[in-house]
Amino acid sequence: MTTPPTNGLNTAPQQPSTRLSVNQATIKYAGLGEALRVVRDTGVQSIGLWREPVAEVGLPEAARLVTDSGLRVSSLCRGGFFTAVEGPTRRASLDDNRRAIDETATLAAAGAPGSAAVLVLVAGGLPDGSTDLTGARARMRDAVAELEPEARATGVTLALEPLHPMYAADRAVLSTLGQALDIAEQFPAEAVGVVVDTFHIWWDPAVAEQIARAGASGRIASYQVCDWVTPLPADVLLARGMMGDGHIDFATLTRAVTAAGYTGDVEVEIFNQKIWDSDPAAVVERTVRAFAETVPL
Amino acid sequence: MTTPPTNGLNTAPQQPSTRLSVNQATIKYAGLGEALRVVRDTGVQSIGLWREPVAEVGLPEAARLVTDSGLRVSSLCRGGFFTAVEGPTRRASLDDNRRAIDETATLAAAGAPGSAAVLVLVAGGLPDGSTDLTGARARMRDAVAELEPEARATGVTLALEPLHPMYAADRAVLSTLGQALDIAEQFPAEAVGVVVDTFHIWWDPAVAEQIARAGASGRIASYQVCDWVTPLPADVLLARGMMGDGHIDFATLTRAVTAAGYTGDVEVEIFNQKIWDSDPAAVVERTVRAFAETVPL
Repeated sequence: MTTPPTNGLNTAPQQPSTRLSVNQATIKYAGLGEALRVVRDTGVQSIGLWREPVAEVGLPEAARLVTDSGLRVSSLCRGGFFTAVEGPTRRASLDDNRRAIDETATLAAAGAPGSAAVLVLVAGGLPDGSTDLTGARARMRDAVAELEPEARATGVTLALEPLHPMYAADRAVLSTLGQALDIAEQFPAEAVGVVVDTFHIWWDPAVAEQIARAGASGRIASYQVCDWVTPLPADVLLARGMMGDGHIDFATLTRAVTAAGYTGDVEVEIFNQKIWDSDPAAVVERTVRAFAETVPL
Repeated sequence: MTTPPTNGLNTAPQQPSTRLSVNQATIKYAGLGEALRVVRDTGVQSIGLWREPVAEVGLPEAARLVTDSGLRVSSLCRGGFFTAVEGPTRRASLDDNRRAIDETATLAAAGAPGSAAVLVLVAGGLPDGSTDLTGARARMRDAVAELEPEARATGVTLALEPLHPMYAADRAVLSTLGQALDIAEQFPAEAVGVVVDTFHIWWDPAVAEQIARAGASGRIASYQVCDWVTPLPADVLLARGMMGDGHIDFATLTRAVTAAGYTGDVEVEIFNQKIWDSDPAAVVERTVRAFAETVPL
């Protein structure tokens, strides 16, 4: 046996794609300050934020940290969860979404030029004990209609995220890109778009035509990537894997998104206990490498 | 507090729906003979069979047991798993499907009048290490094309079963009713149909129109019911629940299937460890009650 030559290619720091954004959920246990620092120090130029770590430091301080980081903000996760029937729970949810719209505008303004004022919306599931999927879907649509004027007035895009159908009962009654576009297209494109997340939509036989449709109507507000790994873990919320570790064809999906005209940041958003338990800086470095190997931009 | 009057309604034996069929997978640990006996003794008139317990006693003996039971046979599970690339594995799979077609014809002929010569097909997942979903789907379609003449010649209907998208990577690249119909409609209706299984398709925003489409083209070869329960168990293959225990609106789906013209047996097929660990006779009795309460025929 001979020792293979080492040219350092696998360990040398890699210049990240200028369009890569690391969603903070990928390094969930880092606070906002640490997340911004780790992402920036790796040479990544953009970050996707979550409301909880923003709330931990307060919105004004969060905006200051974002500005100081020099990073773009690619989205804020997340609003939504508005399938409740009319009553105090629904009103509280809509009020919370209004606050999320304002936070999105503030954080995008605090980010570097090219930041996107995009609020990711997860629909919410069936109310407890209900089997009325059609009704829940109608109430989701009505909530978007109620929030859309405020989003438009503040320059925020509501990004409807279809979630994988395995979450339809308990998390998101919005299940396909086509269904999301059926709603989004009822409103101005600058106010209501969709999230294209590979994990949620890769299986859809209509995915190519729906990505093209989303592009044609200017609705792709966010493109997120992570992989589908099997076997699914016991908690399917944590089923996402690093690109390349699973079954998704990122090349085909990314080319479709590009052909549809999307030129914005591409977020890596991974919910995965093993990744969360790793050092955040190492995770971001691994993300940079995996992104370069799997996502053709 | 007063004691509520007891009228015995909840414990009296119930006359099962004449269209109810118990799929043998619901009482997985019963052998063929026991399954036939338990189902018949409960007054159920039809059974859905699986190849493995048939093979245990051999096809001729299985056919004799079926005839002696007086039950109808509503389907045989299952063939398929034909997404492999060309080569010995694919040839072996197709040969096995040819045997399954013959078994289906034999068992349906052995069943009581009204039996259905329906072979349920599960597509199969992505080959190991492959992310070529489009290719796997094309090979599935080609396998149906190759088997269809033999099915037609033996009077068997190949029933394409779209499985829930959470199985798309490792079990079935056929994910929606619309996708199944796109394939089935390339062939004569008597030879290739689809399975409408509530568990797999309940979440689909297009489910109503696709059920109507399936009916209009005479493609509903089987209607199967069971519930979607949350949280999903660690093994998502065993996520199915008894009707009424979960989130599915059986009334709306069943009325859609009826409006589409389906008049055949309705199978209850549940993969659930707790149900499997119960006494088969008790499971069938519970199935009869749950079916009466949730499925309007």
